[in-house]
Amino acid sequence: MDFTFTQGGVTAAKGFRAAGIHCGIRKNRDKKDLALIVSDCPAAAAAVFTQNLVKGAPCIVSAQHLVDGKASAVICNSGIANTCAADGMEKANAMCALTAQALELSENDVLVASTGVIGPSINMEPIEAGMSSLAAALSKEGHTAAAQAIMTTDTVKKEFALTFTLGDTVCTMGGMAKGSGMIAPNMATMLSFITTDAAVDSSLLQQALADAVGDTFNMLSVDGDTSTNDTLIVLANGMAGNVPVTQKNDEYTTFVEALRALCTSLCRALAADGEGATKLLECRVSGAASVKDAKVIAKSVINSSLLKAAMFGADANWGRVLCAIGYAGANVNVQGVDVSFLSEAGSIDVCRSGAGIDFSEEKAKDILTQKEIIIDIRLSDGTATATAWGCDLTYDYVKINGDYRS
Amino acid sequence: MDFTFTQGGVTAAKGFRAAGIHCGIRKNRDKKDLALIVSDCPAAAAAVFTQNLVKGAPCIVSAQHLVDGKASAVICNSGIANTCAADGMEKANAMCALTAQALELSENDVLVASTGVIGPSINMEPIEAGMSSLAAALSKEGHTAAAQAIMTTDTVKKEFALTFTLGDTVCTMGGMAKGSGMIAPNMATMLSFITTDAAVDSSLLQQALADAVGDTFNMLSVDGDTSTNDTLIVLANGMAGNVPVTQKNDEYTTFVEALRALCTSLCRALAADGEGATKLLECRVSGAASVKDAKVIAKSVINSSLLKAAMFGADANWGRVLCAIGYAGANVNVQGVDVSFLSEAGSIDVCRSGAGIDFSEEKAKDILTQKEIIIDIRLSDGTATATAWGCDLTYDYVKINGDYRS
Repeated sequence: MDFTFTQGGVTAAKGFRAAGIHCGIRKNRDKKDLALIVSDCPAAAAAVFTQNLVKGAPCIVSAQHLVDGKASAVICNSGIANTCAADGMEKANAMCALTAQALELSENDVLVASTGVIGPSINMEPIEAGMSSLAAALSKEGHTAAAQAIMTTDTVKKEFALTFTLGDTVCTMGGMAKGSGMIAPNMATMLSFITTDAAVDSSLLQQALADAVGDTFNMLSVDGDTSTNDTLIVLANGMAGNVPVTQKNDEYTTFVEALRALCTSLCRALAADGEGATKLLECRVSGAASVKDAKVIAKSVINSSLLKAAMFGADANWGRVLCAIGYAGANVNVQGVDVSFLSEAGSIDVCRSGAGIDFSEEKAKDILTQKEIIIDIRLSDGTATATAWGCDLTYDYVKINGDYRS
Repeated sequence: MDFTFTQGGVTAAKGFRAAGIHCGIRKNRDKKDLALIVSDCPAAAAAVFTQNLVKGAPCIVSAQHLVDGKASAVICNSGIANTCAADGMEKANAMCALTAQALELSENDVLVASTGVIGPSINMEPIEAGMSSLAAALSKEGHTAAAQAIMTTDTVKKEFALTFTLGDTVCTMGGMAKGSGMIAPNMATMLSFITTDAAVDSSLLQQALADAVGDTFNMLSVDGDTSTNDTLIVLANGMAGNVPVTQKNDEYTTFVEALRALCTSLCRALAADGEGATKLLECRVSGAASVKDAKVIAKSVINSSLLKAAMFGADANWGRVLCAIGYAGANVNVQGVDVSFLSEAGSIDVCRSGAGIDFSEEKAKDILTQKEIIIDIRLSDGTATATAWGCDLTYDYVKINGDYRS
């Protein structure tokens, strides 16, 4: 491990400030709804966006602003997704223009993101009125307010930071994310912003992000619904002073590992706080014929509504694990599948060679009543592995989504 | 329409008898658990089975017994799925042998199906003990008892019958099914048995079944979980006396239409009684570039947990419809999508050209509080259409599946 977790979020790295305020997009005055992250100097920038054909206007505008591989600020609102609205592009551009004006930047160096209800137009008045106080609130301490301002049905903020060493220079990386429902990223989760003071060439930064996302955000599912607004942005401003990473050397590898570790922490936090969730589910697959097979199987299991409901009920219904392996569409010898459930309370084998084995229901109940459950699947088809994250399916998921808009 | 719905089920056609009893596989003595359907003469037989790699032993045995294209009886238990059990094949074969012995048939002419918990071995003792009374109970009136005996978490039995004319001969077709959860057929639903007295060549019968299933059972989803035991069997005993259908002529077309109509009724009944469901959802897609695109979109919408929960809450959250269209993986111009909600209470347009339009929330609520909701999606990409069926996601789905085994 070439990295160490530390306190903080998107302002942990040198040269980044952030803020989060309530400007009035949401009616509830206790809920912040506008976040801003700024780098003190132009940063190399990379991002991945949803692959949903229905794309939020902010995704389109941010992708346009990223063509030159650099950015200085990210503006983000919660409450309205600015998706499927006739004036979406106009409003997304206006958010960038207002931010650029307040910070004396070029519009092209501002990235934009939105999260909330799909359909309605964003009212620009509260954003216009609030922009100067948002800019005035920018600080090193603003990371928590920013992380709070992007939350929707999230019950806790998600932010992490870590340090790592490139050459002999200590660098820092921090990030925040929001998730909850409509979480089955197919490039990135709903919204996540990562900042680092490492100097990394922007095209390599994009490659590093793609590498890390394949094993992290793309292995996360709360409900199988790929959002229209998935956005993961990383800004690298170089203020740590390391020798810039411009080729795939040891420093690049270290950087990718650090990025993957940060993304993994954010993903686990998103899964654990999935809409209505009471438990984090981690599905580990080993012995697969290929990484693709391992990933497909891990995601199929983590996505099964039946298994998710069984985990809510602490019911060791391993047949549903086998069922989800079988319909995953992967290449697998079902007679060579072993399954165990693990948690802080211990581990229990429930299926060997594709068939059930006797086990203590009492012990299984103890294991499955913990907050973090590992579903460990060992195949006999090869050596590839994968891990996916999800959560249980609960009454509260139904409650939250039965009347989300009101 | 060349067919007329009538009363009855699997014994509506000439020469079929059925029975259903409680033999003791289930502890609850009020729940029947063993069903038998018999044709008075050898019938042409066709079937489709799950494409899940984890297959119930009964699917494998039935497929073996269908190689010659004929069968005379179907034996089916509920309670235990006979899947992922080390002695599954032995037990499935034993069920055929016991049935063959009681009815003086060849084992090879008996098909077998099981539904229930995956994993445990079936105890053969109650089946052995109950077989003679099951055979003795066979009658024309036995269709309802048989339909009840295959139910698991189903709350109502599902059986339909219709008549149609081949040449100048009136033929009859009847069927029953069980569903509830783990319903996303990828060949057939959990279990469905159809009988007809029409004379149809067995290879044409298989083609007719494949034709009908593509538009019916394969367009049904309760929870996206493809069962390990999906089985749809059709028996055609020829006792109506029609000129046998041996080529794809007008009579074949009529037969396929009748089969499709019966399958559609069974699918709608399965969707409406999906685990925990309070509403039947029907998603109609028109204007698609291809039938494949239309089907993929209809199934994506009907499978969205977010939309299903919104329908439970009678919330006209059409953004979730657009979202599910966008991630379906189909070829679609999202700027050309119109969406309406329809029910007995009327219809309401909620999205035009991919963007939201003003609508009365009160009227939408009235429409969405009915028992059958149609989600009507009009694309601008071509002329292909498709329909899929599903149900809402409710507290009861979570409750039922949180502790299914106990």
